[in-house]
Amino acid sequence: MTEGADGGRDAGLGERLYGLVAQLAAAPVRSITGDGVRAALDLVQKALAGAAVPFEVHEVPSGTPVLDWTVPKEWNVRAGYLVGPDGARVADVADHPLHLLGYSVPTRARLRLDELREHLFSLPDRPDWIPYRTSYWNENWGFCLPDTVLRALPDGEYEVVIDTSLEDGSLTYAEIVLPATEPGEPGEPGEPGEFLVTTHVCHPAMANDNGSGIAVLTELARHLAALPSRRHTFRLLFIPGTIGSITWLARNRDLVGRIRHGLVLTGLGDRSAFTYKRSRRGDSTVDRAAAVALAESGAEHRLVDFSPYGYDERQFCSPGFDLPVGRLGRGQHGDYPEYHTSADDLAFVTPESLAGSFAVLTRIIDICERNAVWRNTSPYGEPQLGRRGLYRAIGATMNRQAIEMGLLWVLNLADGSRDLLDIAARAQLPFDAVTAAVDALAGVGLLAGEPKGSA
Amino acid sequence: MTEGADGGRDAGLGERLYGLVAQLAAAPVRSITGDGVRAALDLVQKALAGAAVPFEVHEVPSGTPVLDWTVPKEWNVRAGYLVGPDGARVADVADHPLHLLGYSVPTRARLRLDELREHLFSLPDRPDWIPYRTSYWNENWGFCLPDTVLRALPDGEYEVVIDTSLEDGSLTYAEIVLPATEPGEPGEPGEPGEFLVTTHVCHPAMANDNGSGIAVLTELARHLAALPSRRHTFRLLFIPGTIGSITWLARNRDLVGRIRHGLVLTGLGDRSAFTYKRSRRGDSTVDRAAAVALAESGAEHRLVDFSPYGYDERQFCSPGFDLPVGRLGRGQHGDYPEYHTSADDLAFVTPESLAGSFAVLTRIIDICERNAVWRNTSPYGEPQLGRRGLYRAIGATMNRQAIEMGLLWVLNLADGSRDLLDIAARAQLPFDAVTAAVDALAGVGLLAGEPKGSA
Amino acid sequence: MTEGADGGRDAGLGERLYGLVAQLAAAPVRSITGDGVRAALDLVQKALAGAAVPFEVHEVPSGTPVLDWTVPKEWNVRAGYLVGPDGARVADVADHPLHLLGYSVPTRARLRLDELREHLFSLPDRPDWIPYRTSYWNENWGFCLPDTVLRALPDGEYEVVIDTSLEDGSLTYAEIVLPATEPGEPGEPGEPGEFLVTTHVCHPAMANDNGSGIAVLTELARHLAALPSRRHTFRLLFIPGTIGSITWLARNRDLVGRIRHGLVLTGLGDRSAFTYKRSRRGDSTVDRAAAVALAESGAEHRLVDFSPYGYDERQFCSPGFDLPVGRLGRGQHGDYPEYHTSADDLAFVTPESLAGSFAVLTRIIDICERNAVWRNTSPYGEPQLGRRGLYRAIGATMNRQAIEMGLLWVLNLADGSRDLLDIAARAQLPFDAVTAAVDALAGVGLLAGEPKGSA
Repeated sequence: MTEGADGGRDAGLGERLYGLVAQLAAAPVRSITGDGVRAALDLVQKALAGAAVPFEVHEVPSGTPVLDWTVPKEWNVRAGYLVGPDGARVADVADHPLHLLGYSVPTRARLRLDELREHLFSLPDRPDWIPYRTSYWNENWGFCLPDTVLRALPDGEYEVVIDTSLEDGSLTYAEIVLPATEPGEPGEPGEPGEFLVTTHVCHPAMANDNGSGIAVLTELARHLAALPSRRHTFRLLFIPGTIGSITWLARNRDLVGRIRHGLVLTGLGDRSAFTYKRSRRGDSTVDRAAAVALAESGAEHRLVDFSPYGYDERQFCSPGFDLPVGRLGRGQHGDYPEYHTSADDLAFVTPESLAGSFAVLTRIIDICERNAVWRNTSPYGEPQLGRRGLYRAIGATMNRQAIEMGLLWVLNLADGSRDLLDIAARAQLPFDAVTAAVDALAGVGLLAGEPKGSA
Repeated sequence: MTEGADGGRDAGLGERLYGLVAQLAAAPVRSITGDGVRAALDLVQKALAGAAVPFEVHEVPSGTPVLDWTVPKEWNVRAGYLVGPDGARVADVADHPLHLLGYSVPTRARLRLDELREHLFSLPDRPDWIPYRTSYWNENWGFCLPDTVLRALPDGEYEVVIDTSLEDGSLTYAEIVLPATEPGEPGEPGEPGEFLVTTHVCHPAMANDNGSGIAVLTELARHLAALPSRRHTFRLLFIPGTIGSITWLARNRDLVGRIRHGLVLTGLGDRSAFTYKRSRRGDSTVDRAAAVALAESGAEHRLVDFSPYGYDERQFCSPGFDLPVGRLGRGQHGDYPEYHTSADDLAFVTPESLAGSFAVLTRIIDICERNAVWRNTSPYGEPQLGRRGLYRAIGATMNRQAIEMGLLWVLNLADGSRDLLDIAARAQLPFDAVTAAVDALAGVGLLAGEPKGSA
Repeated sequence: MTEGADGGRDAGLGERLYGLVAQLAAAPVRSITGDGVRAALDLVQKALAGAAVPFEVHEVPSGTPVLDWTVPKEWNVRAGYLVGPDGARVADVADHPLHLLGYSVPTRARLRLDELREHLFSLPDRPDWIPYRTSYWNENWGFCLPDTVLRALPDGEYEVVIDTSLEDGSLTYAEIVLPATEPGEPGEPGEPGEFLVTTHVCHPAMANDNGSGIAVLTELARHLAALPSRRHTFRLLFIPGTIGSITWLARNRDLVGRIRHGLVLTGLGDRSAFTYKRSRRGDSTVDRAAAVALAESGAEHRLVDFSPYGYDERQFCSPGFDLPVGRLGRGQHGDYPEYHTSADDLAFVTPESLAGSFAVLTRIIDICERNAVWRNTSPYGEPQLGRRGLYRAIGATMNRQAIEMGLLWVLNLADGSRDLLDIAARAQLPFDAVTAAVDALAGVGLLAGEPKGSA
């Protein structure tokens, strides 16, 4: 992989990402199970048509024990609306997927407004927006609507029509596996490690959370499939939040030990600064790579420590697994008012933000692909570089002093105790200056381990 | 233990503490041995009458080798005064215990003023105060007096009457042991650890140093004895400074290994900010508990690193023992002018300061009692909390978000490598939010180890 | 060793150092091999006449493999000048050693100015100075001259006369070994460790880089030879840069393991602040000693981390050796405009700077000589110092409180895990307060290990 952070060079990328976000926003209501998920996965698969990406859809039956949980009943929606005393529809899931409380049980009732109120949800602070609410694990039903509408409801009798089903079925998720084309790290010949990238697919309608994550992960599949070589096996998951990652972990416990790096993608389309949330370990390779990629990008960003609140990193970073999985996004959940409301719409995301997120994501992956532990094969004194024509071999692709210092730093620090990210940090050099030095030195046998690309 | 830091809720506490300080200030002169110590210990014992506190007085004979030292001869005072040329008494220990140099040897002499001067001590900078001076290990005698008095002394012959005895006898100290009522930490079933709290009893008259320490330790005995349960054995020592801790350590070397936490109490009644001096280890549980208790208290305070200068922590923290013993006080020795003078009197201390110190002390102990290392029994993915009704089980005794975050943080970090103080620090949560989460989680079996109170 | 940092007390020191710098500046051109090096070493040896310093000159034949390198052919200069169209000499090595490109191959040619230009070197930014240039490993020839001269050269034919020889011969360096007179550190009775101090001798003419280093190292030999005792064996090297240290390392690999401390000396005569460059390890004893010596000196200074760019520390700190070798100097290479030009002349250095550098150097060595790990032999409680008369035994040579605190700190921290530099840092005491405490405590048997000077 050699692209670096300028994913933006693909002129159509931002528009292609935005287009998929728009399709997902217009798709029928979806939740953690049901045909809505399947419809979203269909859109992903269609977007990848012709890209030679193996796309596998898994169906896990309701009732299957998964870690401490159980796969729930499958939820499907035929109709869901509330009719006012005057016969007009106050809220209808056909108008907006957020109008129906997620996982609302089948209900037909006639209620007075005062009886109905505990089933109605609004945002008094944002009176024109519809909130996003669900009740997965406590059987309930309800409608979400703008506070202006709620407040104007007249007394009288309302008719509740919720034509849903909550029955044994299955939980649906999709998995893309792109195998490594090379052995593992230099000097570590065994099975290649895995790089896990996941996104949640359960949130209906909303563009940033998480149409943007689904679109970026889809595009990532296309990108990775097209690479001439891969040092890691890449595993991309499109899963319902929480129960999806738990289900996947339960079904793949033998595989977990191979995961060297991981990223949860969420909220990548809004205009905010980037947020990278470190893995529980705090200094995993992916954490250090993300810090470098974001610093290099020049984009505003913040690095936050792990906390057990957020998205699926909670499961991957639970203490029993403790996987090196961070989370990449822009505005953090709860930090922007549009979060989990109808205002998280297509106007809230931009092609440029989506493309910029894709560029940072691929740069993080690129760094993890290149990072390795090397060993100077001539560690006693400096090797005579001039004799090997090293200064000239590299060319003038970057600042000459950075190149020469890169050679000296790599020779000095490549003692088997540090990886290239460590060396770049200690040397205060760009990561690419270090990898350029590694390529040059490995090319003349001054570093041990198979040079990248030799497999 | 469940009180927390509001020791002040006991309305009479401050007055009771102040009352004992006053009794100790009015008691006869005392030093590191002799009847003065016994009289002070009698006052303590009387103050605890009816409190079901086992109070044991130890007498260790003069000449007993204790570590690198030897128990000194016992010193007792019948009279000590200096008569001027005009027949008036210039200084009399009967007027103020500080007038006589501590451990003055028996002396009867008639001396000219110029011969006498090397035996007279005053504070030119604080001309109205009597300094506190002793000469334990070099035989000497002398009088301490206000500089104004010293400077006004006329020439002529003075009569020295020091009717003391310095003879084989014993060193006296008292010990209160309140055994643990529960096994040790969860998951650590062996013998309960000990919590050592000590104070020096050798300083005569002075209210802050150390009537306040004696009074607070006395009250602590009453408090601990009344607790429904104790997870540590508490050992409270009323000892002469330096030689007392050395003597106790020499006689209890087999016991030292059981000490998990310790505090030296001194200077707890003045109006200054709190000072907590860390143990030599610097991050002992008691050090971290004190930092939390003081931060929680909202009181002004400073945390200072260990140094080998101060009170009996010097002995407990000598490198051979290196016990986790910190020191709690307010104004530090030497930092306030009243230190070791007659101005350290009853006006210098207040009931409020004494009660506030007691509250912090009991909170530190409470935190050490509750602190433990737990292990998440369901560490793979998050356990399903809703199914266990955990959110509701806790009640609304504190901020709801703190409770929920407490549950998530404890589950995530309880991997056996961190104690609750570590978890609270990492989670930036109140210690009580963490213990509330522990209680809830242990109650449904999600944490390993015997939940507190199950013994 | 007891001098401390006041090397300046030797009134003639600065002038003596400056005198040797002047002799070296006036010596014939020299490079990494050849008679110029031998002439410089002769000056050093003459300067040490009568000082009882064993001075050994080594000759290593051309073609000898040394680590990854080969000892080059020997270079000697009989003449080197450039004659202009008018017959006048434009540049002549007889006028200034920098006029001739170092390692210029024998050349006789007549060239037009445009053909000649690639062999002429100047400094456009500093038009009156002659630059210092060499071409050791690529055969070449050339002249260095002021830019004003270069720009004024008329067109026409020039005559190149370079009467040098580049033939099999040898590489020359000198070594002074002053054996330890005492066993190693207290409690570590084996073979004494070595202290390596080196300087490069290959730079011609220039006063600061590196006449100053040669002069200071020469004077250090005299100083160390005169010491009443040495706890380390001192090994002083006068070597050509890079290839000299590589050659020495190649020939002394069995000896490398004995090196406990090392310093590379360079640029010690200019008026800039001190620069100490840490060893690759970053916290070697010499690194910590240098920090203390420089802080004590009150002189402006900066401590910089190791980087693999600079002088011979690059070789000593290559990862295979990773020796505890730092570098002491004033202005850093490249940070001052006079660096590697004819402006690095006798006006650029001062006797005071040279003497001040010598004082810091000997203080660093002194601290390393005194530093040791001791163990309190009475670690349980404080030992009774009064009984041993310790307070008085030390005298009033320094602040009394520092002495008493020194005793307490050393007793408390001398647990075998810290050296005296660690203890001084933790105690925030002067290093000499700590060593005074050690001397006093060791004198009464309270510290384990042979007290210094007992061998």
